[in-house]
Amino acid sequence: MDTPDTAHKVATVDRYVEAFEKKSLDLIREIYAETAIVEDPVGTDAYRGLEAVCEFYRRGFESGARLELLGRPRCAGSSVAFPFQVIVGEMKIEVIDVFEFDGSGKVVSMKAYWGAENLV
Amino acid sequence: MDTPDTAHKVATVDRYVEAFEKKSLDLIREIYAETAIVEDPVGTDAYRGLEAVCEFYRRGFESGARLELLGRPRCAGSSVAFPFQVIVGEMKIEVIDVFEFDGSGKVVSMKAYWGAENLV
Repeated sequence: MDTPDTAHKVATVDRYVEAFEKKSLDLIREIYAETAIVEDPVGTDAYRGLEAVCEFYRRGFESGARLELLGRPRCAGSSVAFPFQVIVGEMKIEVIDVFEFDGSGKVVSMKAYWGAENLV
Repeated sequence: MDTPDTAHKVATVDRYVEAFEKKSLDLIREIYAETAIVEDPVGTDAYRGLEAVCEFYRRGFESGARLELLGRPRCAGSSVAFPFQVIVGEMKIEVIDVFEFDGSGKVVSMKAYWGAENLV
């Protein structure tokens, strides 16, 4: 499997933030592979396949959530990990996401790390 | 498998930072399981088993590296992800580590996400 380059991975993180800004499922469909699996937070039932993933984000966009990066993305192997906060109204949650890419540069796995103690 | 609680996972991250401060392989042996696998950075050959893992940290401690957290640990499922920087002399590298725990509270997997672009 080819490993997408750092520039592509960082651009994907930027597009992900933009998807929330624009409430754009089209951007979500650009980012994720058909077979994508999203586990948010890690330890809960995953959303499997692009349609289930889109439904998850559709609800997220409805909530008015937006994302702010809290540091630079860290790229390694076929992955990127990045720290950010989700802002929903007065509430902020500090999260770390890990994207894993396939050889064509699509995200096949997203894992979101956060817990109740990350509400600020 | 039981999931260790948030307090234990956050305390393990604190002990990990302390291990670098004290250059303590004893702390490393407390943190990791016998069968631990360390991949640092992700995408490179992993260190498998506690002895190989200790040898990796022995060299890290020799380099004088110390760690500074750059945000709160994010606990989810049997894992914790945390952003930090490694400081070695004048050099700083921004990293995200993900620890995965076994039911007894030992770390069985560590993945470190960072690349050349994370040198600051």
